[in-house]
Amino acid sequence: MSSTPTFRRLPRAVREQQMLDAAVKVFSRRGYHGASMDEIADDAGISKPMVYAYLGTKEELFVACLHREGNRMTQAVTSAVAPDLSADERLWRSLRAFLGFVGAHRDGWAVLYRQARGEQPFAGEIAAMRRRIVEVVTELLDHTLRAEGREAAEVELEVAAYALVGATESVADWLVDHPEADPEQTATRMMNVAWVGAAQLLAGTSWRPPIRRGEAPS
Amino acid sequence: MSSTPTFRRLPRAVREQQMLDAAVKVFSRRGYHGASMDEIADDAGISKPMVYAYLGTKEELFVACLHREGNRMTQAVTSAVAPDLSADERLWRSLRAFLGFVGAHRDGWAVLYRQARGEQPFAGEIAAMRRRIVEVVTELLDHTLRAEGREAAEVELEVAAYALVGATESVADWLVDHPEADPEQTATRMMNVAWVGAAQLLAGTSWRPPIRRGEAPS
Repeated sequence: MSSTPTFRRLPRAVREQQMLDAAVKVFSRRGYHGASMDEIADDAGISKPMVYAYLGTKEELFVACLHREGNRMTQAVTSAVAPDLSADERLWRSLRAFLGFVGAHRDGWAVLYRQARGEQPFAGEIAAMRRRIVEVVTELLDHTLRAEGREAAEVELEVAAYALVGATESVADWLVDHPEADPEQTATRMMNVAWVGAAQLLAGTSWRPPIRRGEAPS
Repeated sequence: MSSTPTFRRLPRAVREQQMLDAAVKVFSRRGYHGASMDEIADDAGISKPMVYAYLGTKEELFVACLHREGNRMTQAVTSAVAPDLSADERLWRSLRAFLGFVGAHRDGWAVLYRQARGEQPFAGEIAAMRRRIVEVVTELLDHTLRAEGREAAEVELEVAAYALVGATESVADWLVDHPEADPEQTATRMMNVAWVGAAQLLAGTSWRPPIRRGEAPS
């Protein structure tokens, strides 16, 4: 990395990152189906056969983008959190790191989520990544409860975790569409909706459906 | 509708609904790209040229599915809510109607959201539908605040609405994957996470980032 490579003699790893950078940019602009290998090769300043030789088919290239952006995101979040922090501090740091990452890599986020979520061959990758995130959040909630000598049914924690993760994804989507929005301030807003609710729930305050169904309360 | 149609002489509207039923089923099983017009025609018991003649290309058929399922869902939710209800009652009824709909039409939900969300030509349809839902929720929050003689910046309400909508979508996805889960109970869980947080927020309780950054609270 510290050598001064000529245009033709870049190390393979550097070339690959250049191709992935170009691919993330093109996929996020055109979508998976709309993106052409020609445009990706052009943008990376590399011949199309070389892109195929290094990273395989368009599908393999897309999966490589997903993995790189997903790993970067996961690293940003995990490096921001230490296990000895309190639950709200851990959630806060995770949200700040996650939304900070999204704000700084709007292309990557768009590729990862908007396109892959519904796309047939990639939906599985996204679902698996999401399940891991949900597990981490479920554990966080469970850990917090146990620290207070209480516990909740697995299904309760899981639904709460899905809600928190879904809320965060949705706010991240909003952030992508609002380049003027500050990621840290957005994380604070998210914390207010997510944590304030979760904290109340963990403290035992809960909402119950009205008993008199069909009757409008005044 | 009250006539007794023979197999060959079904009214066009009935035929179309049969084709849409078949299309929703096949799209949700195979995904947009994996679904074939042959399988849809087979499932509907109609010739392929007739499917094309009635509902157009595969893309047009998919959009027709999106619209029908989206309208059914919207109707289920709006018919459950009256404007004179309190905010928590309106949110509760909306959640119950929405998750009840998802539970009863798991195929339709899968088509609508899982596939269309990331798919290039349809992402716009989903985004527009989502924006309308977010607007309704933003209004609900704003209305509740104003009724108490307070107000919040538009952006605060919007982010809270995105969080609520995202949380609900995520929980709906969970519901699709858990056929044993009761939609009403799931709506109650969602209410606990969403409303308890929103209510606190509306009451002026809010979470602030810790002042001493980088320091782990004990």
